[in-house]
Amino acid sequence: MPGEFDFIEWIKTQQSPSDLVKVPVGDDLAVLKWPASDLLLVGADQVIDGVHFDSAVHSPRQIGRKAMNRNLSDCAAMACLPAAAVVTVALPKGLSVDYAKELYLGLKEAADVFQCPIVGGDTSTWNGKLVMSVTIMGRSAGVKPTTRSGAQPGDLILVTGPLGGSMKGRHLTFEPRIHLAREISKTGEVTSMIDLSDGLSRDIRHICRMSGVGARIDLMHLPIHDDIYDIQREDWRTFDHALHDGEDYELLFTATTWTGEQPEAWPVGEITEGSDILVNDRNGLHPLVPKGWEHAF
Amino acid sequence: MPGEFDFIEWIKTQQSPSDLVKVPVGDDLAVLKWPASDLLLVGADQVIDGVHFDSAVHSPRQIGRKAMNRNLSDCAAMACLPAAAVVTVALPKGLSVDYAKELYLGLKEAADVFQCPIVGGDTSTWNGKLVMSVTIMGRSAGVKPTTRSGAQPGDLILVTGPLGGSMKGRHLTFEPRIHLAREISKTGEVTSMIDLSDGLSRDIRHICRMSGVGARIDLMHLPIHDDIYDIQREDWRTFDHALHDGEDYELLFTATTWTGEQPEAWPVGEITEGSDILVNDRNGLHPLVPKGWEHAF
Repeated sequence: MPGEFDFIEWIKTQQSPSDLVKVPVGDDLAVLKWPASDLLLVGADQVIDGVHFDSAVHSPRQIGRKAMNRNLSDCAAMACLPAAAVVTVALPKGLSVDYAKELYLGLKEAADVFQCPIVGGDTSTWNGKLVMSVTIMGRSAGVKPTTRSGAQPGDLILVTGPLGGSMKGRHLTFEPRIHLAREISKTGEVTSMIDLSDGLSRDIRHICRMSGVGARIDLMHLPIHDDIYDIQREDWRTFDHALHDGEDYELLFTATTWTGEQPEAWPVGEITEGSDILVNDRNGLHPLVPKGWEHAF
Repeated sequence: MPGEFDFIEWIKTQQSPSDLVKVPVGDDLAVLKWPASDLLLVGADQVIDGVHFDSAVHSPRQIGRKAMNRNLSDCAAMACLPAAAVVTVALPKGLSVDYAKELYLGLKEAADVFQCPIVGGDTSTWNGKLVMSVTIMGRSAGVKPTTRSGAQPGDLILVTGPLGGSMKGRHLTFEPRIHLAREISKTGEVTSMIDLSDGLSRDIRHICRMSGVGARIDLMHLPIHDDIYDIQREDWRTFDHALHDGEDYELLFTATTWTGEQPEAWPVGEITEGSDILVNDRNGLHPLVPKGWEHAF
């Protein structure tokens, strides 16, 4: 079997061109020329076998695509344009080099949609399951980054699409809302934004904590995804799914106003004074207990 | 036990200040203002339990430090200054939050030496062993990046310190040669550079392949580290260790000339025409067979 260095040689043949890249994959570090006018946004997210995917069920192409798209979705949350990515892979011993190539092609397929070259990384084999870590670098490119920290009492809370049931498959196939995020940010009405990865009931807390505000979510206003259609609509359980499921990768944002002129989005509540996060459901108004995704130690 | 979000809150209290950082840890992505005059260098490297460390033997502080220092050593190889890092950790379930904090403090301890803030990342727990991935971003800061690809026939091949036996402990405690690398680069004599992670016999191949040249290593000229002192000096096995062991994290570079005026370095061979990589040992001149570290699929 070919080894790591042959795999790197193959990766070099797969490079997508980019004006930013002065020294590509193959050296100790890649060298980029960052546009002087652009802020640099950076973060990292990983996918782990048994946590974010199941290698017994999902193809390496799907896994690679998800690993990249989770990071591209963070670019959407900040309304920036993906510019470059680096990837590390801890690969189970005994997997073929073709498997590694499929992982890479999945990563690249997702990144190419946004002209985002993969400029570096590392592959190691080990006696463990598959772990992939992606670091994404984005550029502001004329749009002010949207943080989690600008929400004000009275702001509307909105989501960009129907929620719930992503585990039926959407967690693997979603499209990062990058272009939509930039359209939303350009309206000038947006005060904070996050992507829905942990579930609305948990992700709204990030905005509230960072902004020093409270929130009220109106359960009956949540747009429900067809993926939970087999549960009868208007059944309260459908709203529970929309509230807690996670991995929707839609945008959750706050705005001073939102009209039919703006990009389509569903108002699902309002930012309030204080720090209470409440849900308005069949039992009236009471504390919203998060049930979304948190990694427990 | 506290969960991921409390851990992130703790990390926020640990932030090192940096002029580059406009939005720190805690949002979807960090926001940096990159200095307009500086090239951006980026790459990633991981450490894996059972491959790069042994969690049964090494402390989390040591593991964190090594994870960061491997990446800082890549900055040395390119003669750039570390500017920011992001980290992902796949943490075995059942480890305490104190263990996670010790990992982080090890990362930070290594990064703080070079005023390199950790600006983002991700922690997940799983039913597997510890995997840490670090992405490093460096800035050229007035020194031209040194790549692997500029070596010319006739250039000297040099190393910055004694080699071999790093597994006795130095693989955990080495100091990335960042300041030395920049001094070396500033001489203007350097034509290529790499850090010695895989072992001299393997790393010299990267320079030769990227530069389209061959090399001759003079075995008797290799500086031998005290860590292999228990093997009698001048024993040929000591040279084998220096040639193949890996994880020395010294610099291997090529230069048109090198004099006593320059930073201290040991000439160990010469770049040649063609593509043959030879070693001059007790048996005369013959092909240098790499025995250093390669991850086999």
